[in-house]
Amino acid sequence: MKTSETLIATLREAPAEAVIASHSLMLRAGLIRKLGNGLFSYLPLGLRAFRKVERIIREEMDGIGALEIKPTVVVPGELWRESGRWDTMGESMLRIKNRVGQELVVSPTAEEVAAALIRGELATYKQLPITIYQINTKYRDEIRPRYGVMRGREFVMKDAYSFHTDDPSLDEMYQKMGRAYRNIFRRVGLSIIPVRADSGAMGGSGSEEFMVESEVGDNTLILCPACGYAANDEKAACAPDDLPGAATEKSLEKIDTPAVRTIPELTAFLKTTPRVFIKTLVYRAENCGSKLGDEKPAVQGTGAVGKTRFFAVCIRGDLDVNEAKLAAALAAGEVSLASDAEVERVTGAPVGFAGPVGLKSVPVLADSSVMALHDAVTGALEKDRHYLHVEPGRDFTPAQVCDLRLVKAGDKCPHCGAGFYTKKGNELGHIFKLGRKYTDALRVTYLDETGKAQTPTMGCYGIGLDRTLASIIEEHHDGAGIVWPMAVAPYHAVIVPIKYEGAMRDAADRLCDELETAGVEVLLDDRPERPGVKFNDMDLIGIPIRLVVSDKNLPSIELKMRGQGEVTLVAMENTAAKVAALVSQRGVSSGHD
Amino acid sequence: MKTSETLIATLREAPAEAVIASHSLMLRAGLIRKLGNGLFSYLPLGLRAFRKVERIIREEMDGIGALEIKPTVVVPGELWRESGRWDTMGESMLRIKNRVGQELVVSPTAEEVAAALIRGELATYKQLPITIYQINTKYRDEIRPRYGVMRGREFVMKDAYSFHTDDPSLDEMYQKMGRAYRNIFRRVGLSIIPVRADSGAMGGSGSEEFMVESEVGDNTLILCPACGYAANDEKAACAPDDLPGAATEKSLEKIDTPAVRTIPELTAFLKTTPRVFIKTLVYRAENCGSKLGDEKPAVQGTGAVGKTRFFAVCIRGDLDVNEAKLAAALAAGEVSLASDAEVERVTGAPVGFAGPVGLKSVPVLADSSVMALHDAVTGALEKDRHYLHVEPGRDFTPAQVCDLRLVKAGDKCPHCGAGFYTKKGNELGHIFKLGRKYTDALRVTYLDETGKAQTPTMGCYGIGLDRTLASIIEEHHDGAGIVWPMAVAPYHAVIVPIKYEGAMRDAADRLCDELETAGVEVLLDDRPERPGVKFNDMDLIGIPIRLVVSDKNLPSIELKMRGQGEVTLVAMENTAAKVAALVSQRGVSSGHD
Repeated sequence: MKTSETLIATLREAPAEAVIASHSLMLRAGLIRKLGNGLFSYLPLGLRAFRKVERIIREEMDGIGALEIKPTVVVPGELWRESGRWDTMGESMLRIKNRVGQELVVSPTAEEVAAALIRGELATYKQLPITIYQINTKYRDEIRPRYGVMRGREFVMKDAYSFHTDDPSLDEMYQKMGRAYRNIFRRVGLSIIPVRADSGAMGGSGSEEFMVESEVGDNTLILCPACGYAANDEKAACAPDDLPGAATEKSLEKIDTPAVRTIPELTAFLKTTPRVFIKTLVYRAENCGSKLGDEKPAVQGTGAVGKTRFFAVCIRGDLDVNEAKLAAALAAGEVSLASDAEVERVTGAPVGFAGPVGLKSVPVLADSSVMALHDAVTGALEKDRHYLHVEPGRDFTPAQVCDLRLVKAGDKCPHCGAGFYTKKGNELGHIFKLGRKYTDALRVTYLDETGKAQTPTMGCYGIGLDRTLASIIEEHHDGAGIVWPMAVAPYHAVIVPIKYEGAMRDAADRLCDELETAGVEVLLDDRPERPGVKFNDMDLIGIPIRLVVSDKNLPSIELKMRGQGEVTLVAMENTAAKVAALVSQRGVSSGHD
Repeated sequence: MKTSETLIATLREAPAEAVIASHSLMLRAGLIRKLGNGLFSYLPLGLRAFRKVERIIREEMDGIGALEIKPTVVVPGELWRESGRWDTMGESMLRIKNRVGQELVVSPTAEEVAAALIRGELATYKQLPITIYQINTKYRDEIRPRYGVMRGREFVMKDAYSFHTDDPSLDEMYQKMGRAYRNIFRRVGLSIIPVRADSGAMGGSGSEEFMVESEVGDNTLILCPACGYAANDEKAACAPDDLPGAATEKSLEKIDTPAVRTIPELTAFLKTTPRVFIKTLVYRAENCGSKLGDEKPAVQGTGAVGKTRFFAVCIRGDLDVNEAKLAAALAAGEVSLASDAEVERVTGAPVGFAGPVGLKSVPVLADSSVMALHDAVTGALEKDRHYLHVEPGRDFTPAQVCDLRLVKAGDKCPHCGAGFYTKKGNELGHIFKLGRKYTDALRVTYLDETGKAQTPTMGCYGIGLDRTLASIIEEHHDGAGIVWPMAVAPYHAVIVPIKYEGAMRDAADRLCDELETAGVEVLLDDRPERPGVKFNDMDLIGIPIRLVVSDKNLPSIELKMRGQGEVTLVAMENTAAKVAALVSQRGVSSGHD
């Protein structure tokens, strides 16, 4: 393909709103153009790269037996009413009432559509397991779309849904998907960080997020440099700290601590470290599914399950509570710190004097760090009074002990003990064990071996294509532009004649034919531009192999790999074979792990 | 692929709403399912056929240098305000106001998006011509969606748009598109009827529709059995009738025709045939661009250009006026018969006595058939009076003579004289010379050789994928089900073991491997069903080659082509080669005309 026959639309500068590399480079290299707020058109070069990502995903899905389907993008609102998400999806879901009054939705995700489709086809357990997927347009009405296609309003996702009679069958597909996702990201050239993640509002009992590092990432990742442990900070665990100290013989002692309310004040007052304190925070929990709290008389007034309840949460003085972990421990929709007035009502003392010893009004949850303390200090539930010589287990027993700690850089890996570091990350893919949430709501059933109606369990598995493409550019670029991995490059090679005329033109044309015959996707830059302009454009676009045809070197061709300084001269007659070999070496294969 | 590993979803009966073969068979063969009103999901088998149609279209577009792009499906309403179509598209365009008050449209077509995209990239004449295309989701809010995917609300279209400096360049791409469209329809196995068509509301000066015959078609096609002439009846021409008669010497004679108002009454009264009458109809024309009528004093009162004007239209008594031709002749947005009161005002006589002789109040348009008449009869512009011995040209001269005749079955082909027949047809594709309607409205410009800003001219070229797929089934089915052309069949071949066990299982598995190795797309029916059930399902689904593995015939395999009665026995070791040869013979190639 000659450049004059396609649309080369490079720009010297990107608009100021393009603050991340991929957004700026996709505009500058002429891969995309903005069509509206959060809406982008792919131009020919961008679409070629996009289609390669799409093809790799399709091959991997087909490879594990997932069946491609194609529902519509606009779907009946009725399905969302059935699942209950018509009310919970919020305003990011684009809803339309059409000319005859039917409610329609521009699909933001497809659990409902998948469950409804399977509902219509599923009769017997013999049809299970089954996994379907689509690669289709989605729309979410982001209030602040930004970062180009990384967070646009309309985007393309691959989403797969699997249906199973039981958990082992679901787990098997979940594992296969995990492997397929690793293949996909490897093949497109992405360094992925797979993390076990909180499955959030989606519910379910197992999930894994596939993250890439990003300066503008939505997630904080906790990473071990030694063993490769990786987790979203919402779920990360760490090894217990190895603190000195043994159980004290001394009994509990209540002391006066006038005007001492904060840990720094207390540390100064007692001339010790925060590590000996038991910090006690009062939390509100909304829509709480935990059984704790029902039995406590003082809490009854605050409401039953599904309403607000209060809890005291203890953690070592130098640590912070991870609210995502706390919400998970309480099976709560949301947790937040209680107000000062609520703290006073719950603890009977002003803020600053809460402690677990003798606290009866609310259930006490303790982080594991607390139970490892000896001879500790904590609030005495009275103004200006603290306890010394506190022995957890002796002086108080929490209703529940669990991991509530916010893990940070420097904390120790639970597997190997190395110190963690952290990164910001963006989620490209996510695999979930959904369970029966949607199959229950949409009444999907099958007949089991005994002829009894059963509800299948379900998994869901998504990858954002646009975001994957942008992330490849985030990982593979330099000061001059994009440095495409071979497998997703719009073209494998570009021929740049110094001038497209005379012997150089003849050689360039011939080389182009030979490369095409050898199966190489090649661009011939036939523009009447200065060589420097052509080199810069092709570096910006990021074609992996550059072949310069010059009078000086003919009948040899100058071969340079994008992103490498070295230039080699190759005899014209060997060039096509050499380039074809480079292309096949560099991962255009569909080889699996 | 084993049937147990895909989704075979055949139905014994289709819902009553499926009144045409393709709708019924797509449901019964398990290719599609209804998701909502006018909304369908493609199941795995249906999607395989769909993707083959898509691939063929893409190959043909790429082959003529069209560049694939991918705009979003949801686009800013702003673009439609720019073109003026926000107001004219009517309620079939799905409009949404999003959470931050932006107007959005779920694309029904993409002239605006294409013109806006090119507007941003186009600087100089050197970039022209350029042709872009997309294969993308469209939505039109049909009030009565029906016939399955033949007239659904959401559908996929290929639409291409070309931009040119001048008409010869546009014509060149228009011709290439015409050839590409013929290739596409030939390759998918469709007998297409290409017709020159009225370009209707799209404007422009050249267009061709690609029709298929359909009992539920929206169009009437006029067809010549001898030379292949084909036209939409809105534009069809015919040869003049060879009527006897010579100019009369007699001068005009006004006669009494009491209570004779209709042609049958007049025919009876004068004992002659309708063929000697000059029928005269008064028409209203809205938004009329013709220059006629301005000069006529009596018409001035009815409004200037762009408003309602009146015309008298003359045609031979046995013929009818084609209002589409009349509208085109007058460059009018709409034409309709005038009311009785208007006729009286215009002709000065009650309805039934209009005629061209002496008519001064409005311009007279005559169909060519009128000018061939001699010694004719017509109304005398007085109650109960007619003229005899009328000689067109002698007794009156029309303001304009043109082809206004509604062509019917039996009329003669203008090229070869054979008698026409007619068919009902559906439009699958359409190529248009759009001109500068959208490039003007969206202010698309380029600099010409002299540095002057110019507006490019534009062509647009659409094909509906879903409708094409359904039409293939309309043309290729029998009482047992679909009979896929090889190039678009979901699978080329199916292996049906009488029972999937023992030697038959071994042979079926081995044959499946061999066929896959030979590049044949093969399905292995491993379901524990009776042979008859499997045969019926595979006939319904329409796989072109059936290979039956039976104890009786092993080591030979029974080969049968779908739609043919003949069964042949092929030695197992030759089967894969034989099937591969059948597949490649039957048009999986991408060979061009």
